[in-house]
Amino acid sequence: MDNFDLVITNGVCVTAGDIASYDIAIKNEKVVLLAPSGSLAQAKTARIIDAEGGYVTPGGVDCHVHLQEPAMFGKGTSSDTYETGTRSAIAGGCTTIVSFAPQSRSEPSLLRSLADTHTRAKGNSYCDYGFHLLVGNPSKQALSELDTLRDAEGVSSIKIYMTYDALQLRDNQILSVLLKARESHIFTMIHAENGDVLNWLTEQLESMDLVAPKYHANSRPPVLEAEATNRAIGLATLVANTPILLVHVSDPGAALRIRQAQTMGQPVFAETCPQYLFLTREDMDAPGFEGAKCVCSPPPRDKASQDAIWTGLRNGTFTILSSDRCPFNYDDANHGKKTCITAEDPIGRFKFIPNGIPGIETRLALVFSSGKIPLTKFVEVTSTNPAKLYGLYPRKGSLIPGVSDADIIIWYPASKRLDITITNEMLHHATDYTPYEGRKVGNWPRYTILRGRVVWDRDNGGVISDKTFGQFVKRGSSSLNQIWETVNKQGKFDVRNL
Amino acid sequence: MDNFDLVITNGVCVTAGDIASYDIAIKNEKVVLLAPSGSLAQAKTARIIDAEGGYVTPGGVDCHVHLQEPAMFGKGTSSDTYETGTRSAIAGGCTTIVSFAPQSRSEPSLLRSLADTHTRAKGNSYCDYGFHLLVGNPSKQALSELDTLRDAEGVSSIKIYMTYDALQLRDNQILSVLLKARESHIFTMIHAENGDVLNWLTEQLESMDLVAPKYHANSRPPVLEAEATNRAIGLATLVANTPILLVHVSDPGAALRIRQAQTMGQPVFAETCPQYLFLTREDMDAPGFEGAKCVCSPPPRDKASQDAIWTGLRNGTFTILSSDRCPFNYDDANHGKKTCITAEDPIGRFKFIPNGIPGIETRLALVFSSGKIPLTKFVEVTSTNPAKLYGLYPRKGSLIPGVSDADIIIWYPASKRLDITITNEMLHHATDYTPYEGRKVGNWPRYTILRGRVVWDRDNGGVISDKTFGQFVKRGSSSLNQIWETVNKQGKFDVRNL
Amino acid sequence: MDNFDLVITNGVCVTAGDIASYDIAIKNEKVVLLAPSGSLAQAKTARIIDAEGGYVTPGGVDCHVHLQEPAMFGKGTSSDTYETGTRSAIAGGCTTIVSFAPQSRSEPSLLRSLADTHTRAKGNSYCDYGFHLLVGNPSKQALSELDTLRDAEGVSSIKIYMTYDALQLRDNQILSVLLKARESHIFTMIHAENGDVLNWLTEQLESMDLVAPKYHANSRPPVLEAEATNRAIGLATLVANTPILLVHVSDPGAALRIRQAQTMGQPVFAETCPQYLFLTREDMDAPGFEGAKCVCSPPPRDKASQDAIWTGLRNGTFTILSSDRCPFNYDDANHGKKTCITAEDPIGRFKFIPNGIPGIETRLALVFSSGKIPLTKFVEVTSTNPAKLYGLYPRKGSLIPGVSDADIIIWYPASKRLDITITNEMLHHATDYTPYEGRKVGNWPRYTILRGRVVWDRDNGGVISDKTFGQFVKRGSSSLNQIWETVNKQGKFDVRNL
Amino acid sequence: MDNFDLVITNGVCVTAGDIASYDIAIKNEKVVLLAPSGSLAQAKTARIIDAEGGYVTPGGVDCHVHLQEPAMFGKGTSSDTYETGTRSAIAGGCTTIVSFAPQSRSEPSLLRSLADTHTRAKGNSYCDYGFHLLVGNPSKQALSELDTLRDAEGVSSIKIYMTYDALQLRDNQILSVLLKARESHIFTMIHAENGDVLNWLTEQLESMDLVAPKYHANSRPPVLEAEATNRAIGLATLVANTPILLVHVSDPGAALRIRQAQTMGQPVFAETCPQYLFLTREDMDAPGFEGAKCVCSPPPRDKASQDAIWTGLRNGTFTILSSDRCPFNYDDANHGKKTCITAEDPIGRFKFIPNGIPGIETRLALVFSSGKIPLTKFVEVTSTNPAKLYGLYPRKGSLIPGVSDADIIIWYPASKRLDITITNEMLHHATDYTPYEGRKVGNWPRYTILRGRVVWDRDNGGVISDKTFGQFVKRGSSSLNQIWETVNKQGKFDVRNL
Repeated sequence: MDNFDLVITNGVCVTAGDIASYDIAIKNEKVVLLAPSGSLAQAKTARIIDAEGGYVTPGGVDCHVHLQEPAMFGKGTSSDTYETGTRSAIAGGCTTIVSFAPQSRSEPSLLRSLADTHTRAKGNSYCDYGFHLLVGNPSKQALSELDTLRDAEGVSSIKIYMTYDALQLRDNQILSVLLKARESHIFTMIHAENGDVLNWLTEQLESMDLVAPKYHANSRPPVLEAEATNRAIGLATLVANTPILLVHVSDPGAALRIRQAQTMGQPVFAETCPQYLFLTREDMDAPGFEGAKCVCSPPPRDKASQDAIWTGLRNGTFTILSSDRCPFNYDDANHGKKTCITAEDPIGRFKFIPNGIPGIETRLALVFSSGKIPLTKFVEVTSTNPAKLYGLYPRKGSLIPGVSDADIIIWYPASKRLDITITNEMLHHATDYTPYEGRKVGNWPRYTILRGRVVWDRDNGGVISDKTFGQFVKRGSSSLNQIWETVNKQGKFDVRNL
Repeated sequence: MDNFDLVITNGVCVTAGDIASYDIAIKNEKVVLLAPSGSLAQAKTARIIDAEGGYVTPGGVDCHVHLQEPAMFGKGTSSDTYETGTRSAIAGGCTTIVSFAPQSRSEPSLLRSLADTHTRAKGNSYCDYGFHLLVGNPSKQALSELDTLRDAEGVSSIKIYMTYDALQLRDNQILSVLLKARESHIFTMIHAENGDVLNWLTEQLESMDLVAPKYHANSRPPVLEAEATNRAIGLATLVANTPILLVHVSDPGAALRIRQAQTMGQPVFAETCPQYLFLTREDMDAPGFEGAKCVCSPPPRDKASQDAIWTGLRNGTFTILSSDRCPFNYDDANHGKKTCITAEDPIGRFKFIPNGIPGIETRLALVFSSGKIPLTKFVEVTSTNPAKLYGLYPRKGSLIPGVSDADIIIWYPASKRLDITITNEMLHHATDYTPYEGRKVGNWPRYTILRGRVVWDRDNGGVISDKTFGQFVKRGSSSLNQIWETVNKQGKFDVRNL
Repeated sequence: MDNFDLVITNGVCVTAGDIASYDIAIKNEKVVLLAPSGSLAQAKTARIIDAEGGYVTPGGVDCHVHLQEPAMFGKGTSSDTYETGTRSAIAGGCTTIVSFAPQSRSEPSLLRSLADTHTRAKGNSYCDYGFHLLVGNPSKQALSELDTLRDAEGVSSIKIYMTYDALQLRDNQILSVLLKARESHIFTMIHAENGDVLNWLTEQLESMDLVAPKYHANSRPPVLEAEATNRAIGLATLVANTPILLVHVSDPGAALRIRQAQTMGQPVFAETCPQYLFLTREDMDAPGFEGAKCVCSPPPRDKASQDAIWTGLRNGTFTILSSDRCPFNYDDANHGKKTCITAEDPIGRFKFIPNGIPGIETRLALVFSSGKIPLTKFVEVTSTNPAKLYGLYPRKGSLIPGVSDADIIIWYPASKRLDITITNEMLHHATDYTPYEGRKVGNWPRYTILRGRVVWDRDNGGVISDKTFGQFVKRGSSSLNQIWETVNKQGKFDVRNL
Repeated sequence: MDNFDLVITNGVCVTAGDIASYDIAIKNEKVVLLAPSGSLAQAKTARIIDAEGGYVTPGGVDCHVHLQEPAMFGKGTSSDTYETGTRSAIAGGCTTIVSFAPQSRSEPSLLRSLADTHTRAKGNSYCDYGFHLLVGNPSKQALSELDTLRDAEGVSSIKIYMTYDALQLRDNQILSVLLKARESHIFTMIHAENGDVLNWLTEQLESMDLVAPKYHANSRPPVLEAEATNRAIGLATLVANTPILLVHVSDPGAALRIRQAQTMGQPVFAETCPQYLFLTREDMDAPGFEGAKCVCSPPPRDKASQDAIWTGLRNGTFTILSSDRCPFNYDDANHGKKTCITAEDPIGRFKFIPNGIPGIETRLALVFSSGKIPLTKFVEVTSTNPAKLYGLYPRKGSLIPGVSDADIIIWYPASKRLDITITNEMLHHATDYTPYEGRKVGNWPRYTILRGRVVWDRDNGGVISDKTFGQFVKRGSSSLNQIWETVNKQGKFDVRNL
């Protein structure tokens, strides 16, 4: 019970359930011992870190990450590779991501899409990773592959879209996906915005030459999200309460509809993102093209919406908080500027601005420092619940001896009184901007530990790992809230019961 | 002020606002005098009718009537012409209909579609009539014709569909229609069922060989209607609160969503129909093909839903109560039976059963006799409000001297203690069934008077008019609830305000 | 059919159901003929009034009127007698009031209380009048008198209080009242504010010396009203859905709770008043003691609440709109100023300000001129529905030939372009202020006609009637919405069914 | 790091956040080490328990326990002392209780009431215990003692009643209590039933001689609870969002109101109890007086309510699940039967049946075995959350090394396939019945460990502790959900802000 690889002493450890001072010992990539605070200070160990009273949390688990995906529309190229994106992750305390393996509309097979993505990620990741299948073509073949995905490939979740011409599924297609996912115990994420309405509004704006970045918000008012959320929940309910998660919820109306489903006991989950907690629509109204840095979908909303989303985090409406990082370079490499800026459109056209912002590195520090949610809730929504929901738990998302990978963040103690100003320069992605430029945070991951190895030491070397250390993690079915036990109890979908 | 054409004495007159005994005098097709009960008993008049204490109400106005439209799907032919349909109308107390002028998908012009329908109706109608344009193709041309429709053609309303492959509009198309309708002060009716979901469920049922008539209900569960209703309201709200009416609401969930909009002050109106007050899903579960007689869309629901719809009538959620008559012969003329019955499908396939039931003749008697709503409410929802909503008022829908056409129903006095059993034989349409066969009603229009002429005398000759008496009525914009004044005050839709 | 007493020609007549041009003939105090516009211009009649295209509406019915009641608290004396109050009524177009016969806590008998009030009113009223019993002591005797009240006395409604120490009933007392009222088909009005909370807040304010008039609002925040409204509805529901009306609703939260009950089909009705449509809390924040002129209970709320109350009028949440006139002189006769102003309290203490404002004369003009509700709705909530709800209909509240008393307002035609500034000087009450001083209205009753007699001619003599013309009107049970038929159908309250 | 007092190996440990296999070492009454499963099998330890794969959970914390209180009404004497009640507790896995120190109406001091209760408990408790002050008389003195209670006495919570003549506080009194509790960071529990209505209904039932036990339910229909719950939340909201917990919620309507407050972000918490999850109203309808065994307040409801309460547990509406144990002997010692049974009332009168049932011993086994909530949720609501809410955490309610008392339950492994039939004989209280007689449970605490000592070994000796081992636990302020941090941020209640 000694000869540890690493001991963390004198920290205040926080899990989803508990907050208290105790020591942690690590060996062979795992947490192996939790012991009274200070009691391991003298243990035999290859390395000991004195947390100095700082908080110690499980490593961040970010399950909404786009990396090296082909652009679905707009002009621009994804600004990070698996290498640079995951480097950024660990520098921000994120030790595991689940990113997307995109299936294009012309590709009938999910397995082939998965294989392609493996190629991009393998050997190029600083953090551990898994994949969701992003279903662009719910072909017969694709749906027939779901069991294999789950059993052989360790992929237990998919994502579908109600918007974007290249990805949008019609309601009948969604039902087919939900039905098969339910049978296969595959969890379904839904991007709920009404694509038809979005297209119409974009046309209206274009026809009036209202094309500046800020009009992105006008093209996607809250009702788009609330409507599609209601529809998604209706569809899932129809298919015998198939479990779903609404991704990146920004509108309080949508959140209320979700909560109503939860009130009725339906397995409807929700995710939100830092952009809906720290940005507002006004941020898109910067001079010139600057506002493009905050263009994501759904767009940031107003202050009252922000407050409501915080309330939703506190009262449990939101199960997880992810980054939805999906940036494109502000200044395009080949172009010197965003490709949507042309002589005709000196401040660009919002419809060509690729949607998505960076945020994998800033997610944890922003929320941790906010003081707006209890730290146990912080760990729950940024690490434990994502791990449980997506079948990574208990290997990821907690600090269980003998069970959990030693994925840990050590934060600075309050006594250090940090006052860090976020700049893009300090970040580790390849993206050339951050929408949080100039914001202050009061803490930052001091150390990030992945499977027992210190991969980020902010004060000594920064990223001190390499891109081959991250591993693909096979995931099982969700273990959150007895999701599949409940589905099994309710029996199969039967159209005769409608 | 004498020498009347007709005097009605000794009746209890009911309008949307009042109920009391007084006499009515008629001259030159108009109501010309209201006077104390009995005071006109000795007036000089061509004819006098002693109402014997029976109720006297304005003639029924039925603004949801399908006649001689081409079948959109299914196998079967519409079972009535303008002649037989309107004959049925007056025998049931309905003096004015607004039926549909259907525009097919391949026809870009609304005006041409209107002209076609005029041809069918002209000289063939026992009652007065107007048209809604049924927009199957919201082409640029079609939308550009809306002002002409309203100004020159006296057509101030349109109907659009969220279901049926041949008619279903996508949400962006709906927005274009709503925007133009709002600008033109054209009122929009929406059939709100989710067509994509309907198709998927039909496929599911077909694939399991669940094809009996009763499975029609399974193909259209309440969530289809509630979802589409929410979406329709969302779309209308987006376009600066464009006024809409949800037709044939059957689901309490949909009704609740509508009421929520009304609570917020939005101009959202709703219609229901006798089939949702008097039929239930069980009626479709008759032996053999019999259930097909109750197949309409949405389908009749359960008893609890019926009760909720009655409550919605009482508390004002529903503005109007129409028949949505749209029947097809049960036994097809060319075929000896419903064309969807074949050797392979001896009880038919529900997906081939044309949707729609008769009901123009039974509507008023069923509701009047129910005792479930006050008689003023009965007049309001079956006559006055339809007239106001669709621009027929005050010419139709009331009993205003010098203003209203003398369209009047005289009912039997309670002392007659009628106990009428509805049979198809007693009805005056060409359809070979009624879903209300065998039901009892306690009253029936004794006389129907259209523009001062007795066109139906139940005890003496029945229909005593001819098919040339009915006239086309040009309608103005809606006068209900200051709809357009409110729209004007709110200003134009402006995408910059979103 | 001629030799009329009075003919009104060339008006645009408005009832709760209809709006159109026609002529009205009057004889023996009754409306006797409705005829085409202009057709009676040459009729034989003692008098003819050319309405010149102005609107003609049924006389106002104001069923929430306090007159000559003993003050329940505060320092001050009621500022009007039956004589001056009803004089003010007819000058404002109000032809019938239902005022309160107050039973004090020490008086066990309702009948004696009623007799007292008769004494005060008889021979002193310019308009017709009825009484509600204000139940201050629901003694056994009092409850046993309800049947007599209804049958012999023509009093079919009572009012109870959930606040004011001198009147507040505890919930068990309320249940006893509701139970007996239900059995006796007596309609119950409820003043719903939580008296215990009010007392506590008043103490808090007093203890901090926050005593200016504006703190009246702080002593009665919206939650007081919303809470008591919910409780009242709960109590009424418990006693087998006993019909109730919540008086003077000012808070949107209370209105929402009421609407929820209506949505469920419960017989819950609501009243609002001009003070919640035209005043706000800011009006109480005038310099010095001036704010006292707007002190009523509940207090005027904020602008958003005002808007919500207007919406509630339009969507039918509110059944009636009354004045709740209950003023006390601003400058006390014996005192030179409000009796609550003393040397110690130069701007008074809000807890001593008697609650209540004048408004019987301004009610109709304010709402009519607002343009915020359709005129049919205006008639419905200010005349027809009060008459129906309180058993005055069809004698009052409409224009039915041979049936309705000829109680009529003739308004100025729009062509006159009036721009009247309200001043207390122009009003006909004895109260020394109006909270609407300085407000503009665009119209005013030009003529008020009571039972065929012109009692108010604004341009020629003003009040031209005398205080003996008004009559006591015996009322029957409510005829609105089949209230009692529904109660009868549901059967008696039975504690075994709970 | 060795020489442990006790090691638990081979268990599946469950906390509020985590579920996984690991070993636990205990020393000096504390958990001192968490280590990989099996790794401590050979550790030096005074005792080792092989959990054989069974679940290991923190000891139960039951914070709603009535013991040795004077009866407030009814005929009967409390059936347990601290000795027998806490003996029952440990036999059921409950290691800490918070019971009530009752202040009677005639006693102005809380501190004296507390001292009295200390006398009863001291040296007589098998489990650890704390006290809530039950405020029967919110005198000036009482409220002034709150700070002392919290600071010196370790009592950080109070309970108040909205019902029961002997305890009921009026709304103004409740406000005074809430205001002071907020200032003192004392947490307030509220029994929300409308006492006035209850009294009225009881009189109605009595007057009809409906006195059998089952009529207890009729005297307290759901609306009593829903109404009072709404009122309580309104009062707490008024006093600047003072945190409250609604105890023993049984009605889904009340739960919905609570959830609505939580949706808005208000600090409103709720408790439910096994009687609302396992009993229904029908259980009170047993022959003769038998139904009295299920008489508690609120009464058990119907099956649909049960389901809704389970849903509320799963979706987080309920923060804690307590026993509310409060039984009285069925057969009275002095009497041979319930004292409310007399010659006149052979089956008793429900109004004399003291309200309350036993349940401290059966609480955990019933819920654990139900399979209706995840085990982490089970621990959360029966142990961790009560500990956090009432200031016992992290000493109680979790398994944190060096921090948590070694209060632990070891359950039987699933392989044992237990099928235990609950009988009163097997229980360890002094009460002569259990309402769960004859029910089956699939598991039961095999060992209960209190501060490292095995106090219950079901298979070897049962209760093997003594009544002097339990200790009084001083509690701090609540640490749940940043309750008081939030209150502090919002600032003091200020009547000027209303």
